[in-house]
Amino acid sequence: MAKKVGVLLAGCGVFDGSEIHEAVLTLLFLDQAGAQIMCMAPDMDQPHVIDHTNQSSMDRKRNVLVESARIARGAIVDLKTVNAEEIDALIVPGGFGAAKNLSDFAVAGPQAKVHPEVHRLLNEMVEAKKPIGALCIAPATVAKALAACHPKLTIGTDKGTAAAIEAMGAKHHSCKVDEICVDETHKIVTTPAYMLGPDIKHIAVGIEKLVKKVVQLA
Amino acid sequence: MAKKVGVLLAGCGVFDGSEIHEAVLTLLFLDQAGAQIMCMAPDMDQPHVIDHTNQSSMDRKRNVLVESARIARGAIVDLKTVNAEEIDALIVPGGFGAAKNLSDFAVAGPQAKVHPEVHRLLNEMVEAKKPIGALCIAPATVAKALAACHPKLTIGTDKGTAAAIEAMGAKHHSCKVDEICVDETHKIVTTPAYMLGPDIKHIAVGIEKLVKKVVQLA
Repeated sequence: MAKKVGVLLAGCGVFDGSEIHEAVLTLLFLDQAGAQIMCMAPDMDQPHVIDHTNQSSMDRKRNVLVESARIARGAIVDLKTVNAEEIDALIVPGGFGAAKNLSDFAVAGPQAKVHPEVHRLLNEMVEAKKPIGALCIAPATVAKALAACHPKLTIGTDKGTAAAIEAMGAKHHSCKVDEICVDETHKIVTTPAYMLGPDIKHIAVGIEKLVKKVVQLA
Repeated sequence: MAKKVGVLLAGCGVFDGSEIHEAVLTLLFLDQAGAQIMCMAPDMDQPHVIDHTNQSSMDRKRNVLVESARIARGAIVDLKTVNAEEIDALIVPGGFGAAKNLSDFAVAGPQAKVHPEVHRLLNEMVEAKKPIGALCIAPATVAKALAACHPKLTIGTDKGTAAAIEAMGAKHHSCKVDEICVDETHKIVTTPAYMLGPDIKHIAVGIEKLVKKVVQLA
């Protein structure tokens, strides 16, 4: 039977939401792996809306669930309606939204607060021994949510971010863009994606490996 | 030397912009084919902004270039600054933006007006004998812009849309989602993508073929 895999989105666009290439490649490789996909996002206002032509702040309100629906072509549910019983695995693409909306790691660092529904679902997944995949900067939010487990994960090779992740109780493992880091104990799979890049063909290699490993562990 | 391929975007989201999966897969396959990518979009207000969770209209203003920049991760230029001399080929992903922003085919049918800069660049490409790729509904805009050439192209198998395309002077060729239609005379390559779908793994097959053919013709 097809594995049902949740994809937790955080908006639509690298600077204030989910990184679009990472999210779409996750969907592509999940579909190619025969998985059933369930996109979800928190129903919350974005703290920032960024003009992606110049990275300036736009004085507009946008909602994370509504913007995430663009990547999901409308096939998306409110995160708060999802529990670990109904999915076999969960993947979190990167982008600043993963560290500004799903938690506030991008501004608060190791003192980050994780969105309560993100915290709940990630902990439910670990308790149910179901795999979690996280790309790019998303492992920082996973590290904070699962600090009590001391997960092993990667955000690539950036020393400052790695130190912040270790300050939250996780173990950081340096990784190239075409590699994955696997915490076999907690079934957590991570890959650097656009933390290293540089281009879409490079991130695709690591994301395909991550998706295959997550589906295999499910 | 790497071929330089323009990707003409029309916003960010299937219901009011470029279809995100089609656009990202175009970028992936171009990068894998060794092409240099130049994203572009018209600097114009969107006539519609659609809430992708329920397809209702949102009473907000958005700009096509600014929203397209989300897909391009900021690496995008204003369409009006681009001419056919500086690119070897041009690809237009689909989504309603390709038929509401690049032209108004989605509302006006065969009486559609094409955005003047889109009309200019498409005609420059044909005059320079440089290839054009178009996905999903984007061939309808190409058909109108290049009506004088009577191009051969596909939007899949939808009879109403095919009839509208033929009413504009083009020749429609029915095509499956994993196939491409090639007009060798005008170097125009088209594939149905999400006009047929149903899923991302299916559209990826036709889009990869289209990108390879466009790069080969360049």
